[in-house]
Amino acid sequence: MQEKVFRDPVHNFIRIDDPMILALIDTREFQRLRRIKQLGVANTVFHTAEHSRFTHSLGVYEIARQFAAHLINFKTQTPGDGGWQPEERRVLLAAALLHDLGHGPYSHTFEHIFKTDHEKYTQQIILSSETEVNQVLRTVSDDFPSQVASVIAKTYPNPQVVSLISSQIDADRMDYLLRDAYYTGATYGMFDLFRIIHLMRPYVGGIAFEDKGMTTVEDYVVSRYQMYGQVYFHPVSRGMEVLLTHLLERAMSLYERSKTDSFVDGHFVSEALVPLFEHQISITEYLALDDATIIANISNWRNAPDRILADLATRFLDRKPLKSIEIADDVRDLLPKLVELIQAAGFDERYYTAENDSFDTAYDSYNPNSKKTKTPIEVIQQDGTLVELSSESTLVQALRGRTYGNARFFFPNEMLSKHADWDLMAPMYEEFQHYVRNGKLIRP
Amino acid sequence: MQEKVFRDPVHNFIRIDDPMILALIDTREFQRLRRIKQLGVANTVFHTAEHSRFTHSLGVYEIARQFAAHLINFKTQTPGDGGWQPEERRVLLAAALLHDLGHGPYSHTFEHIFKTDHEKYTQQIILSSETEVNQVLRTVSDDFPSQVASVIAKTYPNPQVVSLISSQIDADRMDYLLRDAYYTGATYGMFDLFRIIHLMRPYVGGIAFEDKGMTTVEDYVVSRYQMYGQVYFHPVSRGMEVLLTHLLERAMSLYERSKTDSFVDGHFVSEALVPLFEHQISITEYLALDDATIIANISNWRNAPDRILADLATRFLDRKPLKSIEIADDVRDLLPKLVELIQAAGFDERYYTAENDSFDTAYDSYNPNSKKTKTPIEVIQQDGTLVELSSESTLVQALRGRTYGNARFFFPNEMLSKHADWDLMAPMYEEFQHYVRNGKLIRP
Amino acid sequence: MQEKVFRDPVHNFIRIDDPMILALIDTREFQRLRRIKQLGVANTVFHTAEHSRFTHSLGVYEIARQFAAHLINFKTQTPGDGGWQPEERRVLLAAALLHDLGHGPYSHTFEHIFKTDHEKYTQQIILSSETEVNQVLRTVSDDFPSQVASVIAKTYPNPQVVSLISSQIDADRMDYLLRDAYYTGATYGMFDLFRIIHLMRPYVGGIAFEDKGMTTVEDYVVSRYQMYGQVYFHPVSRGMEVLLTHLLERAMSLYERSKTDSFVDGHFVSEALVPLFEHQISITEYLALDDATIIANISNWRNAPDRILADLATRFLDRKPLKSIEIADDVRDLLPKLVELIQAAGFDERYYTAENDSFDTAYDSYNPNSKKTKTPIEVIQQDGTLVELSSESTLVQALRGRTYGNARFFFPNEMLSKHADWDLMAPMYEEFQHYVRNGKLIRP
Amino acid sequence: MQEKVFRDPVHNFIRIDDPMILALIDTREFQRLRRIKQLGVANTVFHTAEHSRFTHSLGVYEIARQFAAHLINFKTQTPGDGGWQPEERRVLLAAALLHDLGHGPYSHTFEHIFKTDHEKYTQQIILSSETEVNQVLRTVSDDFPSQVASVIAKTYPNPQVVSLISSQIDADRMDYLLRDAYYTGATYGMFDLFRIIHLMRPYVGGIAFEDKGMTTVEDYVVSRYQMYGQVYFHPVSRGMEVLLTHLLERAMSLYERSKTDSFVDGHFVSEALVPLFEHQISITEYLALDDATIIANISNWRNAPDRILADLATRFLDRKPLKSIEIADDVRDLLPKLVELIQAAGFDERYYTAENDSFDTAYDSYNPNSKKTKTPIEVIQQDGTLVELSSESTLVQALRGRTYGNARFFFPNEMLSKHADWDLMAPMYEEFQHYVRNGKLIRP
Repeated sequence: MQEKVFRDPVHNFIRIDDPMILALIDTREFQRLRRIKQLGVANTVFHTAEHSRFTHSLGVYEIARQFAAHLINFKTQTPGDGGWQPEERRVLLAAALLHDLGHGPYSHTFEHIFKTDHEKYTQQIILSSETEVNQVLRTVSDDFPSQVASVIAKTYPNPQVVSLISSQIDADRMDYLLRDAYYTGATYGMFDLFRIIHLMRPYVGGIAFEDKGMTTVEDYVVSRYQMYGQVYFHPVSRGMEVLLTHLLERAMSLYERSKTDSFVDGHFVSEALVPLFEHQISITEYLALDDATIIANISNWRNAPDRILADLATRFLDRKPLKSIEIADDVRDLLPKLVELIQAAGFDERYYTAENDSFDTAYDSYNPNSKKTKTPIEVIQQDGTLVELSSESTLVQALRGRTYGNARFFFPNEMLSKHADWDLMAPMYEEFQHYVRNGKLIRP
Repeated sequence: MQEKVFRDPVHNFIRIDDPMILALIDTREFQRLRRIKQLGVANTVFHTAEHSRFTHSLGVYEIARQFAAHLINFKTQTPGDGGWQPEERRVLLAAALLHDLGHGPYSHTFEHIFKTDHEKYTQQIILSSETEVNQVLRTVSDDFPSQVASVIAKTYPNPQVVSLISSQIDADRMDYLLRDAYYTGATYGMFDLFRIIHLMRPYVGGIAFEDKGMTTVEDYVVSRYQMYGQVYFHPVSRGMEVLLTHLLERAMSLYERSKTDSFVDGHFVSEALVPLFEHQISITEYLALDDATIIANISNWRNAPDRILADLATRFLDRKPLKSIEIADDVRDLLPKLVELIQAAGFDERYYTAENDSFDTAYDSYNPNSKKTKTPIEVIQQDGTLVELSSESTLVQALRGRTYGNARFFFPNEMLSKHADWDLMAPMYEEFQHYVRNGKLIRP
Repeated sequence: MQEKVFRDPVHNFIRIDDPMILALIDTREFQRLRRIKQLGVANTVFHTAEHSRFTHSLGVYEIARQFAAHLINFKTQTPGDGGWQPEERRVLLAAALLHDLGHGPYSHTFEHIFKTDHEKYTQQIILSSETEVNQVLRTVSDDFPSQVASVIAKTYPNPQVVSLISSQIDADRMDYLLRDAYYTGATYGMFDLFRIIHLMRPYVGGIAFEDKGMTTVEDYVVSRYQMYGQVYFHPVSRGMEVLLTHLLERAMSLYERSKTDSFVDGHFVSEALVPLFEHQISITEYLALDDATIIANISNWRNAPDRILADLATRFLDRKPLKSIEIADDVRDLLPKLVELIQAAGFDERYYTAENDSFDTAYDSYNPNSKKTKTPIEVIQQDGTLVELSSESTLVQALRGRTYGNARFFFPNEMLSKHADWDLMAPMYEEFQHYVRNGKLIRP
Repeated sequence: MQEKVFRDPVHNFIRIDDPMILALIDTREFQRLRRIKQLGVANTVFHTAEHSRFTHSLGVYEIARQFAAHLINFKTQTPGDGGWQPEERRVLLAAALLHDLGHGPYSHTFEHIFKTDHEKYTQQIILSSETEVNQVLRTVSDDFPSQVASVIAKTYPNPQVVSLISSQIDADRMDYLLRDAYYTGATYGMFDLFRIIHLMRPYVGGIAFEDKGMTTVEDYVVSRYQMYGQVYFHPVSRGMEVLLTHLLERAMSLYERSKTDSFVDGHFVSEALVPLFEHQISITEYLALDDATIIANISNWRNAPDRILADLATRFLDRKPLKSIEIADDVRDLLPKLVELIQAAGFDERYYTAENDSFDTAYDSYNPNSKKTKTPIEVIQQDGTLVELSSESTLVQALRGRTYGNARFFFPNEMLSKHADWDLMAPMYEEFQHYVRNGKLIRP
């Protein structure tokens, strides 16, 4: 096969030399990823971050391809010597390409509400004999689909392949950091991909990095830390997510009510969404969902008879996020008072307030004591011994101990209105504002 | 007002110092542009070109802001001296921001089929007292909306303001070339925006460019030529557009039939689209349309009982564009024969074939003899005289005479199948292929 | 050998996997290129263009390495089929690396005055058994030095190898365009190296480019045209070159005079330069010359007893270039009058005036009728036939006919002094200025 | 004055609107900076880092210009309110441009040996009535030169102006980090200049940064840390510096000996260097020195009768740095043994070995307990209070405590020769190598 290239501004080109990979890209299930935004609602804050999971998936594939091209220099010589086995390339590339296949629209929010799990869907789409993806994978061998699925599930026997796809420093993270940096314009997310790849050395237990390049790896870790702090945990983005969550909760609640209450018409939910609301969704139905399904429904709901649904839909479409303040533990006892004021101002607190913290992901990432223990990043010294990155790098150590993010309380932006003398609710607003200073909840 | 900045990878930052501009951005009508892709279906070819009209509109605003910041150095001293009038800044910036406000989803295709006109909608949204945009504009003055609309309509009295927004070298083109280049990764679309702006000099009839920078202007013209040739006229992208056109034509035809034929159920068109299909759409209804409306409908149509609608919808969603060949005038007589073969292979030629040429836009751009005559780009020599760019630059002259693009014939990819012995239609395919060589229609 | 990489901002990395190449870089003759600026005096105009021939040479090597990595996909199958022969890689890489080895300081100017020829020196350094470069090359085979030299001399039997190193579109030009663009900040000099390389196809007579990428090749040609017009032919840079030429002519003249005139002391020329002034310079002596030799001499000359030498040296070091005006053929008859005025103002016209045109190089490049006929750029169509680029591309055709550059007359900047009433020479200045308008010589 | 722009790849353009600044650039003293490399010998490691102090100085000016353009938004309203005083712009810009004026060639090394001090020379050149720079500055006012000098000396009364030019986060550091990153290709040195500037707020005691941008400031600090660790402290670069130091020490020693020992001819030192060797150098003589003076001398010394001088000159010109190993305190007692072996192998230990550590600069930078206490970076919180960056940022705290760099022992590369059986010195080499492991000195 003559090499086929896709132009990509992040990697310059995505290079494909395996017809099986090209066929996977052409499947219906993979093409669907074009219609799912990589960062969900984040483009309401970083307005240029409009890229899809499709472009990210191609990027992860390309990085994995470059991994394989580098590792070929460290081929295994005798069994068990920890060298790279070139025959792993296909399973590596397929897993890289397909790792996000099960993502639905606005996954973060949807999984929370509808109890779906994109990782399980990824497995199922790969394993189900009904999908085009499965058919393409089976052209390699009957058990190739399950091999690919096991890489994504981290149960594949070769730990090198697994860690290239999911570990602290894998093709997935590398692409999303670089890509999100490119599309948001957040230059601090950049790091030196070429050099990181050239530092990779296979060993029996996975992939380590040559010690001469520790600064490059440090730079990756700092980029990651900064992208989380600045982009992924952005309070306004979270304000939009909270809005979407409440919007869907309200829709769910109305939908349930419609079954018994003849005043509520359940048809406000489009047919495509019904299986989700019924918590009984087949793979085919799941694969019919994309961002457009959701947006088209919300556009409809703008005119819903239910006042709360219509208002939340409007706020979501017209980008009126809930506002927020940071809450420290020692003032958390004040929250009920705030909720009271918000209710008094006419808002249903179930749909117009929320607590939301964004510590977990980042904290887990570098905290070996966490429940989800992550494999450490290993550094190979000149004499061949491995040491953990954080034991070598003060910078990474500092980040390990660091509690990223914060806890925030969300509420309608009306509560911060100034000089609203003409507004009946002005006294509630005014009192509420006594509790806010420097973007934080304070004891007045 | 303290300056507010939006990060933007193309311009680094979008800088806003006027609360009216910020209020325009926050309107419902402007936020809707987030949900309309700038390049329609082009991301099926340039997979990373997923940016919206929202980001483009902010970019045009930012370029106009930089124009104004530069032109302030050439303020008018005595009336009629051709200097810049600083009080034009607001109308310039508002027009720049709002120039694409009336774009609907997949405008190119939709306007063709539903006879809508995004420029008229832009005017109406600005002028209608029901829109939030109009309300914000009226805070400046009662006739400010009509001033802004007249800039976009090119009837505003000051030709400098008009030509900064729409001319051969205006804020709109500058942003879309740079932005489309950034998002596709087509580096040839880049040119030196800063320097072009610094070459601008106002004169009585518009804006000219200092002759010392002719190379920079040449570079812009070449970038434009290359972006049209490589990106905007891409045959695969046009194959997707043809598909979308036929898909909508089929839907229209079925919808019309549903009115009289009880076997056809008109509900396959969602409520939001009905006004469009009825050719009676109010501004409010128009503003409720976005890419998601269309995609959600097409997703539905994948399962339509009408075989053609379902097939075209599937091809569109799964990215199976119609294929094409270039047609020269001297072989155009062969097309009926090709159509015949396509019919014989089982395809309805109304929905599976098309002729499409892409000469016009590019040819018009630099041909003063065209029906849509464009204002030329003027160069100011050191002694103050103006000369037209193309009379000075051999490069631009060459591009003027150049017939960009080509005429193409589109057909189902099946017609190019090889070794399809098991396929009943194989003889038709085989005969068809005798007419194709080097991507062109030939006389066999 | 484990791959060794040099970081390079233009190519990201220079990658070396052949110990012979590494040994060549480490030779005394190659290291000397660090001390010779790539663009001579051009950094007096483009102040950041301070890069050396060393970095350029590594860049040419890297591009050649990428050529070879691509061409391996088009290996010869049967003798004479026009495929690539992988065993040519070493001679290709060595020739790429060493092609500029014979450059002396400020070559352009020096060759003109001292009748040296950097191409001949390159040959000699490669072939002379005394050089370290020769010793390294001979580790490959006894005739390897002469093979490498013949590639540079364009007499090597394989035309593919020759054209990769010197043709209209070769590794040398590609690196200098990209590198000079990077170091000057002239973004219009950029083009898509990766894509150009991927379009390359070997054929019996050389290297052609796939027709699907004609725009990329066009872009390269336009970049080249613009870099010549904007950077390489810049009038101020030429004003510095004229100054250097006259400075060296004056030094030569004084040196010659010192042999007979006891009032002139020949020791103002440092020992290292003497062989050059005597027109008898050995390779070893030639290799001892670098930019520092010249600058250190000129610094000395600033205090020379000869008024002209001292003045020219001071103007050169303190960046006071000769000024210039464009001269059209129909006013050329006025030049003697100008020279007269310059003499009357007290300047020796031999050292303070010059005519200089910059048509030749660029004109030759794309004019097959020129005495130095260049091989055309060939495009391979889908059916395998070759056509010349300029017969396919209107843009390139336009550039072929284009007479780049201009003829200029150089003179001391004093002649343009304004309001110099206190200056005895004011009348001469004033009259001179009657002949100048818009930077051109005019008939007053 | 119409704005004049210099193209610069780091800042895009250097913009000049003050004729005094343009006149300063045109002075003899400032033009001399073109002939002094910014990074001394570092281009022997980072081969593309060939930029001069001239380009850096223009860059520092441009950053200061951007500072002033931003600070104008925070003009002082009432005396003593800590606002920016626009009339400080000229002194700020002049000081920024001239801050490095006194740098000599290879300053680091030269100052150490010849006890010169570039900061004192900067003052003198600005204050001496003989220089062109002084004459230009006096066109502003008689005491303008001393004002500019006092900014550089940090004695200027307005602490805002001083800290914009020299503090932990000033125009000088910002330009050299960005510029060195651009020219070395070390992308980790990049940070977001535009955003840092936009975060600046003047206060009574200097310049603080808005807390919302702490990540941007963190990124600057990390860039700085990484550039020191990776570029400025690079062991090979230090090996070249040690070589240059010993070379000059040898030259000094021979020069001194020539005064009494008739066998040594002192003329091996060129006239331009003599005042330096005599430790009696006038400003005019100092200003005649540049990199070329040094390189031309060293080129001469390659053929010197003194074997050591000739050998060190050759190693320097042909890039054969001394090699090095890291030395920990607990093995420092082994150094005499190593020196013994090096002597036994025939090397004069005074000129072929050295200890060199690179802790100080970086350690000082962020350690307030150091003898050279630095002003901290202040962050302004929303309520106006100032806090020190390192008390807010775990990352910066981590860097403060971090001991950058290392102590190294340098020696001739011959000591690491392998398999040198034919070499008389082989036993010494072999024994030496017992003391080396993983690039470190070990107890065998």
